[in-house]
Amino acid sequence: MENITQLISTTNFMKLLEALEWRYASKKMNGQPVPQEKVERILEAIRLAPSSMGLQPYTVLVITDPELKKQILPIANNQQQIIDSSHLLVFAAWNKITPEHVDEYIKLIAKTRNVGESSLQQFKAMLTPLAERSFEDSLNWTARQTYIAFGTAIAAAAEEHVDATPMEGFNNVALDKLLNLNEKGLRSVTLLPLGYRDAEKDVLATSAKVRRNKEELFLLQ
Amino acid sequence: MENITQLISTTNFMKLLEALEWRYASKKMNGQPVPQEKVERILEAIRLAPSSMGLQPYTVLVITDPELKKQILPIANNQQQIIDSSHLLVFAAWNKITPEHVDEYIKLIAKTRNVGESSLQQFKAMLTPLAERSFEDSLNWTARQTYIAFGTAIAAAAEEHVDATPMEGFNNVALDKLLNLNEKGLRSVTLLPLGYRDAEKDVLATSAKVRRNKEELFLLQ
Repeated sequence: MENITQLISTTNFMKLLEALEWRYASKKMNGQPVPQEKVERILEAIRLAPSSMGLQPYTVLVITDPELKKQILPIANNQQQIIDSSHLLVFAAWNKITPEHVDEYIKLIAKTRNVGESSLQQFKAMLTPLAERSFEDSLNWTARQTYIAFGTAIAAAAEEHVDATPMEGFNNVALDKLLNLNEKGLRSVTLLPLGYRDAEKDVLATSAKVRRNKEELFLLQ
Repeated sequence: MENITQLISTTNFMKLLEALEWRYASKKMNGQPVPQEKVERILEAIRLAPSSMGLQPYTVLVITDPELKKQILPIANNQQQIIDSSHLLVFAAWNKITPEHVDEYIKLIAKTRNVGESSLQQFKAMLTPLAERSFEDSLNWTARQTYIAFGTAIAAAAEEHVDATPMEGFNNVALDKLLNLNEKGLRSVTLLPLGYRDAEKDVLATSAKVRRNKEELFLLQ
């Protein structure tokens, strides 16, 4: 039994690194569906992802409707993974933090931790200035938080051996209009099609991963 | 043997989710050192993290010098994890993308994939406009990429059962000056002290994790 425990422990050790080594931004997907339980785990990783002060100032759209994906295709530079993916995730940042957002979050903490809202007044005072930022400062900040969830989703998909193609190259204004995101107080930031690589047609499937070496990326002090 | 394989497979399945459940932003660390092999794996996860077009427009400082950490402490609102951590990571975005950055990256791709630079001219043409962006647009974009690496580091630390406290609350200008980051073409964006929680003194160590439920976080379409 000790050997088995050791084996499991060793296997786990490098799991995230193996997943990150395995993944790449697939240029050609094969249309096969991603099982629902895998999608659920990827979404759960997004839900558990950290954000500044825990506010989670974003919403993630999960798009499976083929007609809607067809409408998104030209908005996303005709990148075929939009339609060849199984699920298309749209990461949308809150375009403004409102006092209502702050109130709801305080209520959620009170409920989750079973404490009175009055005990959270100091924390609430830290959050309140967020609702007073300019539109631009606010969106810059919520977008950055969204990128943490986005990165977590990419890692989670890789761990499930599900391909994912991170995309910034699309017309945000047109997508916001199509999906009525402004009305929802949201702004689209990134896309993440989930699916499976078409290894034969995707030249990148066998290309070596390009990364700066650690002597260049890290400064030890 | 099938059962063992199954067991390993099941254990691996949820590893990232378990790590994300386990982690929180420790408010009080105990000063114990993080073993070098764990730090190496966390850094390797950062190195493998995805970024737009693979450019990795950031540098990560790894600070262990106690004197330097003491100087950073007041710059980071006296958050004690700065000095009670074992390693302090400073995520610094490139404050401008230069034509030299683009050239170096093209050379790196050519070398890694053993192809001629001439075959990369189309890709280079896609990168060149990045070096023509305004200072502000450029920094906004490099900072967002940095948050992917930052989120990946948080997940990697958790997988190693190493505590990490994501921090945005510090004086970027003062830190850039102390670490001579401007001269290096860098701007500090986030901090990540790595260490071990002092479970007895950290009230958050036993607090329930607060997250919006999936019905609120996700929109299915």
